[in-house]
Amino acid sequence: MTEPARFLSFVRDGSAGYGIETPAGIVDLSARHGDRWPSLREVIADGALDTLSSEASRLSSDFSAEGITYGSPVPAPEKIICVGVNYPDRNEEYRDGQAAQANPSLFVRFARSFVGHDVPLNRPPESVQLDYEGEIVLIVGKAGRRIAEKDALSHVAGISLANEGTIRDWVRHAKFNVTQGKNFDGTGSIGPWLTPFVDESQIADIALETRVNGEVRQRDRTRRMIFSFRKIVSYISTFTTLVPGDMILTGTPTGAGARLDPPVWLRPGDVVEVSAEGLGILRNGIRDEIANA
Amino acid sequence: MTEPARFLSFVRDGSAGYGIETPAGIVDLSARHGDRWPSLREVIADGALDTLSSEASRLSSDFSAEGITYGSPVPAPEKIICVGVNYPDRNEEYRDGQAAQANPSLFVRFARSFVGHDVPLNRPPESVQLDYEGEIVLIVGKAGRRIAEKDALSHVAGISLANEGTIRDWVRHAKFNVTQGKNFDGTGSIGPWLTPFVDESQIADIALETRVNGEVRQRDRTRRMIFSFRKIVSYISTFTTLVPGDMILTGTPTGAGARLDPPVWLRPGDVVEVSAEGLGILRNGIRDEIANA
Repeated sequence: MTEPARFLSFVRDGSAGYGIETPAGIVDLSARHGDRWPSLREVIADGALDTLSSEASRLSSDFSAEGITYGSPVPAPEKIICVGVNYPDRNEEYRDGQAAQANPSLFVRFARSFVGHDVPLNRPPESVQLDYEGEIVLIVGKAGRRIAEKDALSHVAGISLANEGTIRDWVRHAKFNVTQGKNFDGTGSIGPWLTPFVDESQIADIALETRVNGEVRQRDRTRRMIFSFRKIVSYISTFTTLVPGDMILTGTPTGAGARLDPPVWLRPGDVVEVSAEGLGILRNGIRDEIANA
Repeated sequence: MTEPARFLSFVRDGSAGYGIETPAGIVDLSARHGDRWPSLREVIADGALDTLSSEASRLSSDFSAEGITYGSPVPAPEKIICVGVNYPDRNEEYRDGQAAQANPSLFVRFARSFVGHDVPLNRPPESVQLDYEGEIVLIVGKAGRRIAEKDALSHVAGISLANEGTIRDWVRHAKFNVTQGKNFDGTGSIGPWLTPFVDESQIADIALETRVNGEVRQRDRTRRMIFSFRKIVSYISTFTTLVPGDMILTGTPTGAGARLDPPVWLRPGDVVEVSAEGLGILRNGIRDEIANA
């Protein structure tokens, strides 16, 4: 089996583009097809990932990855929906507490709360409680509403990784809902690539791991998810029409910094890596955000 | 003082457009300026509401309002942020229970959860608990982050009304967050118009009322809001950059159907009206949604 293509979105010399990353560098597909497909969102909507992947395999790279800034693979999706903690507590694996959850807890993040691979996450001046959450991301390929679980994966075009970075104290800033703690600009990341989804074996039982400065903080396998990928897609599509480019962040394992005793927050200079088999490593530093006036 | 212009977005003969509604009919501005400004979002971003309002005052209407389908005034905003219940309980007006809320509860709705004026709201097959929530909507005109309360209203370009229709049992479908109960396609409405925001007196102390089949169910005044318009804009902009076209639904008074004893839900044939001084009447019927396959 050939290695799946590594689609990415990027900014280079101030312009947004997309292409495929190879060991030799970036094949710039937006330079060739930007008029027809302004971003990967339109590529996905047109079902053109395969075509572009074949085309790119016959091309040499246009420039090195050194000169680009990685973006989230779909820079401006219609929506980004996130599932709350979705892996059982290791200590409670054989208890039935988790089974009590009938449906996944869902919240929304805006695209501007995410940066791409290798871009530092913002620690805003309002809080020191920046925390990591490593997750698998599904990228919708085919529109649908009230999708049955058996059909759910046929609506998925790509897979990626997320660090669903969270400002913990702002998650409980109000009486209900986590919106504000999940939506500080540039506090999370998605990437490095969109890996085309071909077969359920790519995600059915893969290891997901989050490391801070090389130390493993989260580690679990997708077969242990409380709500399966199929269930999540089906459930969300019950109320909203999923459309190409939509991103679903499928929930994080236990082990976020907030769960440590005492809690440990991310600090400038830290490096967080989220990795999963076949999806690469999403790596981000941390920086103090310089607040604009 | 002249009556403020009534900007609207619409669909006519299958095409999306925008214009101004006058007693004689619709002045079609998208036919004249659609290349430069594809939707009211771009009009707002370019600060061109005033220019178009002046232009329209010199034109006669192009067609009757009979032949259009009203849309939400900004059909595809970057984001729609909603504030939870934001008016005190009348029975608790002199207690201090409400004062305990330090910050507004916030959640997100997708544009596709809203229809325009005069389009029936969907009662989905998954629930009979469709409920109304009348609200004032702020439409952002100028981008900003960490906006001070004193400057907040200078970032507002327009005002509108919403029926923030809610599927009550799905609001508590999961352990946390109201996302699913607030995002069934076509269960809420925004409109009928975008009224240009000129002066704080337009919103500082206006009556807001929701009627079901002519019976008043919600009635309050904006001066009684728990979190003021200024506070809401400032608070939201602490974490996310507001951009032109963003919509903020500023919370509903008490009196939703869920609060009645026993609760009363909306049914096909009902007519819900949300009105506020200077903003018109947002009227929607109810229909049983025909579920697609």
